[in-house]
Amino acid sequence: MRPFLLPTRRCLKLDPFLSVPCRFPRRRSSDMATVNKTAHPFDKTRLEALLNRRFFYAPAFEIYGGVAGLYDYGPSGSSLQANIINEWRKHFIIEEAMLELDTTIMTPAPVFETSGHVARFADWMVKDSKTGDVLRADHLVKNVLEARLAGDKEARGQAAAPKEDEKDKKKKKKAAKAVAVQLADDVVKSYEFTLAQLDNYSGAELGELCRKFDIRNPDTDNEVTEPQQFNLMFASSIGPTGQHPGYLRPETAQGHFLNFSRLLEFNNGRVPFASAQIGRSFRNEISPRAGLLRVREFTMAEIEHYVDPLDKSHARFKDVRDTVLDLLDRDVQLSGSTAPTKMTIGEAVDKGVVANETLGYFMARIHMFLLKIGINPKRLRFRQHMANEMAHYATDCWDAEIENSTGWTECVGCADRAAYDLTVHSKKTGHPLVVRQALKEPVVTEKECPEFNKKNFGKTFKQDAGVIQKHVEGLGEEELLKIKGELEQGKTTITIDGKSFELSPEVLRIERRTFKQSIREYTPNVIEPSFGLGRILYTLLEHSFWSREQDVERGVLSLPPLVAPTKVLIVPLSAKEEFDPLVQEISSKLRRAGIFSRVDDSNTSIGKRYARNDELGTPYGITIDFASVQNHTCTLRERDIMDQRIASIDEVIATVTDLVEGTIDWEEVCRRLPAYDGVQAID
Amino acid sequence: MRPFLLPTRRCLKLDPFLSVPCRFPRRRSSDMATVNKTAHPFDKTRLEALLNRRFFYAPAFEIYGGVAGLYDYGPSGSSLQANIINEWRKHFIIEEAMLELDTTIMTPAPVFETSGHVARFADWMVKDSKTGDVLRADHLVKNVLEARLAGDKEARGQAAAPKEDEKDKKKKKKAAKAVAVQLADDVVKSYEFTLAQLDNYSGAELGELCRKFDIRNPDTDNEVTEPQQFNLMFASSIGPTGQHPGYLRPETAQGHFLNFSRLLEFNNGRVPFASAQIGRSFRNEISPRAGLLRVREFTMAEIEHYVDPLDKSHARFKDVRDTVLDLLDRDVQLSGSTAPTKMTIGEAVDKGVVANETLGYFMARIHMFLLKIGINPKRLRFRQHMANEMAHYATDCWDAEIENSTGWTECVGCADRAAYDLTVHSKKTGHPLVVRQALKEPVVTEKECPEFNKKNFGKTFKQDAGVIQKHVEGLGEEELLKIKGELEQGKTTITIDGKSFELSPEVLRIERRTFKQSIREYTPNVIEPSFGLGRILYTLLEHSFWSREQDVERGVLSLPPLVAPTKVLIVPLSAKEEFDPLVQEISSKLRRAGIFSRVDDSNTSIGKRYARNDELGTPYGITIDFASVQNHTCTLRERDIMDQRIASIDEVIATVTDLVEGTIDWEEVCRRLPAYDGVQAID
Repeated sequence: MRPFLLPTRRCLKLDPFLSVPCRFPRRRSSDMATVNKTAHPFDKTRLEALLNRRFFYAPAFEIYGGVAGLYDYGPSGSSLQANIINEWRKHFIIEEAMLELDTTIMTPAPVFETSGHVARFADWMVKDSKTGDVLRADHLVKNVLEARLAGDKEARGQAAAPKEDEKDKKKKKKAAKAVAVQLADDVVKSYEFTLAQLDNYSGAELGELCRKFDIRNPDTDNEVTEPQQFNLMFASSIGPTGQHPGYLRPETAQGHFLNFSRLLEFNNGRVPFASAQIGRSFRNEISPRAGLLRVREFTMAEIEHYVDPLDKSHARFKDVRDTVLDLLDRDVQLSGSTAPTKMTIGEAVDKGVVANETLGYFMARIHMFLLKIGINPKRLRFRQHMANEMAHYATDCWDAEIENSTGWTECVGCADRAAYDLTVHSKKTGHPLVVRQALKEPVVTEKECPEFNKKNFGKTFKQDAGVIQKHVEGLGEEELLKIKGELEQGKTTITIDGKSFELSPEVLRIERRTFKQSIREYTPNVIEPSFGLGRILYTLLEHSFWSREQDVERGVLSLPPLVAPTKVLIVPLSAKEEFDPLVQEISSKLRRAGIFSRVDDSNTSIGKRYARNDELGTPYGITIDFASVQNHTCTLRERDIMDQRIASIDEVIATVTDLVEGTIDWEEVCRRLPAYDGVQAID
Repeated sequence: MRPFLLPTRRCLKLDPFLSVPCRFPRRRSSDMATVNKTAHPFDKTRLEALLNRRFFYAPAFEIYGGVAGLYDYGPSGSSLQANIINEWRKHFIIEEAMLELDTTIMTPAPVFETSGHVARFADWMVKDSKTGDVLRADHLVKNVLEARLAGDKEARGQAAAPKEDEKDKKKKKKAAKAVAVQLADDVVKSYEFTLAQLDNYSGAELGELCRKFDIRNPDTDNEVTEPQQFNLMFASSIGPTGQHPGYLRPETAQGHFLNFSRLLEFNNGRVPFASAQIGRSFRNEISPRAGLLRVREFTMAEIEHYVDPLDKSHARFKDVRDTVLDLLDRDVQLSGSTAPTKMTIGEAVDKGVVANETLGYFMARIHMFLLKIGINPKRLRFRQHMANEMAHYATDCWDAEIENSTGWTECVGCADRAAYDLTVHSKKTGHPLVVRQALKEPVVTEKECPEFNKKNFGKTFKQDAGVIQKHVEGLGEEELLKIKGELEQGKTTITIDGKSFELSPEVLRIERRTFKQSIREYTPNVIEPSFGLGRILYTLLEHSFWSREQDVERGVLSLPPLVAPTKVLIVPLSAKEEFDPLVQEISSKLRRAGIFSRVDDSNTSIGKRYARNDELGTPYGITIDFASVQNHTCTLRERDIMDQRIASIDEVIATVTDLVEGTIDWEEVCRRLPAYDGVQAID
């Protein structure tokens, strides 16, 4: 999420097609072992069809033809997002008493001039020389060269490229227009060298590569123009005069920094503390394509933790010290490996792999958060930024990367931004963004001070007195000592703008004085964890998706109850009126318990309704049939193993409340409630 | 919140300076009666200073000089807003199982061309002829004429204008440059007539008024230019080509409408249902001034409830039927009165004052919501739109107006938008936005149908056959009947583009046929409650603010626990380490109970810390002193009456949990816990 870096590019480079089965072993009862979630390999096309069908999200303005990089979240996606945000707020803001902010998206241009975004938050683009179509220069080079290399491999009869989904394959073939053409060995080498360096090329160099390798627009086979810089901020104008340019923020961070003084005051002047904000940001990507992973409008959650630059320890580091993380540090990457090291965060900080405790603390907390909402820990790693990848001011930066069907994607950035932002804004506006700390023991210093005998001095030098005084007061310690010595000898001569003045001890004395400093003033450093919620949401959906062993068509989203859009589905046998009172009773009792439920009384079989809700990720189902009306009972169904239990309505509600709150598991449910052996509600 | 209407203007007109003491009688124990919340009259300057000091909100980009109409919410404001949103989600979305959406802010231009915003979402502005400063034309006319009328009253020695805050007064005086100047009687009349009509003037008419009354820019005394239209949408450009203009949405509604088909499918094809969305919208106001009441970027919450146009009853209307509302209907306003009528919503719908049950249901629910979060019911009314004020497509529209120091402000709009939006988008895109309802009994219709004898027809008319067939098939019932009659007589002649053709029964027959329709297709109507959350938040702050009887400096925000930013303040006697374990224990126990607390261990007296937290609206305080360390007890303080009780830590936590959840009141607390008679923690 750092502004000047473009993460997906990098992630793809590291391991573009690594594919691990979408399996997420969660703490569950032994019964759960009977479900084989990897019976069918992960199928992205099926998942995307499901997400579209169940309206998790869809292209925005679809009926107007859609706009690349803009997506609307439907009821399922919105709830999932709201639940993730809710948990984020608890896990970070409430747990650590952070100061929440809600700052504006529309931002006047001077702010981003200061932050560096106006000059540097840009990508290189080329245009098709005939059609004017715009392409991102580095993506073009990458796609064409990778496709040619793939064609070369095929021609040489080597193993086909690693599995990828058909759509991507087609695109790449089209991009190359050079399927199964063998290349000279030195050409292969130079392509590979170029791809490895891709992040380092300037615009001019990318243009040179296009000419050197005859890289054209794959859609038209036309040549492309010289690369031009394109700023990724959406521009607008504030007010009616047209004289106040503004931008939509590309990150929420600047809104924190500009309010630093107010936040510090709110926190009674004390550091460390953190501000936090959840909100929309915008990046006008040149040609966004990767679904929710690269979009033009997205929801972020950012923390700015302000810390004394001389003391980056963290009071609660001891609580996370033993958390084991998969760390892919800079040195390992330089050695050409992408194999992370398992290490406790305590060890990593002790060894200097991670720069300081505060950074380490947040890495561990990020890890815990991602696991809590359902990210597969085996597909999560922390990758350290390379020296040339990091913003120039940053001290250290680690990305939480989550593996998905496109490779490893940066989903959370965790950077030590040092004092950069507060310093530049303070310098620009003249508003001090500093901490004033009362020192426990005052710092005592001594220095030489000029003392003028005002009466004699004024009488002697008249209109020159002011100039001389200003000059002497501006002198350094060494010069004052020299004058002091000369005065002790009787007199000293000083020269100002070619004019000399002779001073005697009668007009000037230099005295050594003692100073006591009881306040220390400093610009705090900022540790910034920055979350791309859309990316987390999408990777979570990939990690949660599987199909029933007996039927690949029956997709399931095993979302944890904590974030599942709906917690309980209420299923009356039919829409018959006699079930209404029970449906009402269960709904309102669940509502009172704070459990979000939905009723599905549509005209299809119960099995079909459950299948639909497995796709929606609803963890529990309550079924009402004629026996319910007679006995005031209902059944409780678990989504993943499709086990059903039966009990009184109140017992079932109490049990499902405990389940959703995470205080019991299904094994405990099995002990509490008898199995249901009826037939009506079976899937 | 309706796009083509500009509410504050209107609200000010109705009752610009009506001032009711800021008293909000809430259901409380008898003890509460001892607190006199109206000892000091409402003082806006004091409230604004408090909100700024405690960082509820502040001008955005303040250190860069700020931008009119953009505000950042600090920790207190963000939490208050988050709590209001949370309650909104519960009260509306969860309670009614609405389908939540999260659609994009950036919107391609064609969408707003269709909706009418590009052509009509605009205000008239004039420029200072010398400085180029921009002013909103209607505001200019209003301010200058009102100030002249006030000056006239003063000159006539009539009672001064109703109380208003000093700042406003100064502005108005400046605007007029005509203090205490008596006007001729007919001039007074023509000013008053103009002000009453202000909403009806076109741009040209506003320009004429400026010339006729010599209205100039009050800041410079320069003349102003002819009014020009200024569109209030922020414009931008999507993607790098510059060929895709986009706008920031001025309301969230269009995002609902464009997704209608997906939502309907999600709801299993059934109507009625509602979608809901909470999100940011933008309006590039010409010169925003009224704090949070008129801003350029704001958070809205909108519901679009889709209903059968033939049946606007509501299944849960019976639950709200007896809710009494203050209704200011169209007829009362036309009669020149602003006195609302108290009426149950049931009676209002029965009598046709409110157009239908669904609209009435939402008005009652809005009323309940606003009371729940702390709006004073005596300062809340529902005002019906006048015929000329309502969008042309709307059937009925009621605004929930909340009185505050600027007058009555529209905070929630509740409109029946009929089928307008779905119809225009459907027409533009060709995508049907309709409901297909299976009819219980098929509708049987009969009509005349032409039947060609293909062989004879082709042979007779050859290349003309197609044209003739198309022509005949396009004829209406009446014409077909005429032809039928003629054919029965032997032949008929039809003329196409001046060419005549003679048809006989051998080539054409007209038959009466029966059709059975089992599906009814219709465009649903939309009832739209639309909430301006910033306006609600600000008026709530005004309604909650008062000062202690004995000391006007001691401001209190009596926010209900439900929305108070922090529920409990934990106050250790000092920052001494021996209190840490108890602070930790209480914090973590409250966290587990889901109660948001903050610790204040700053170096000031407990009294000062409580005073600060009364300003923050924190309803309860827990104090820890040396006795706490010894006895594991603490005291519990109530904000409004400053009563303190003492008990064991666990008892206090259980009690405060009940208080925050609203299951007990302070009277019950007094029964449970003994009074505290110590001295340390007294205010």
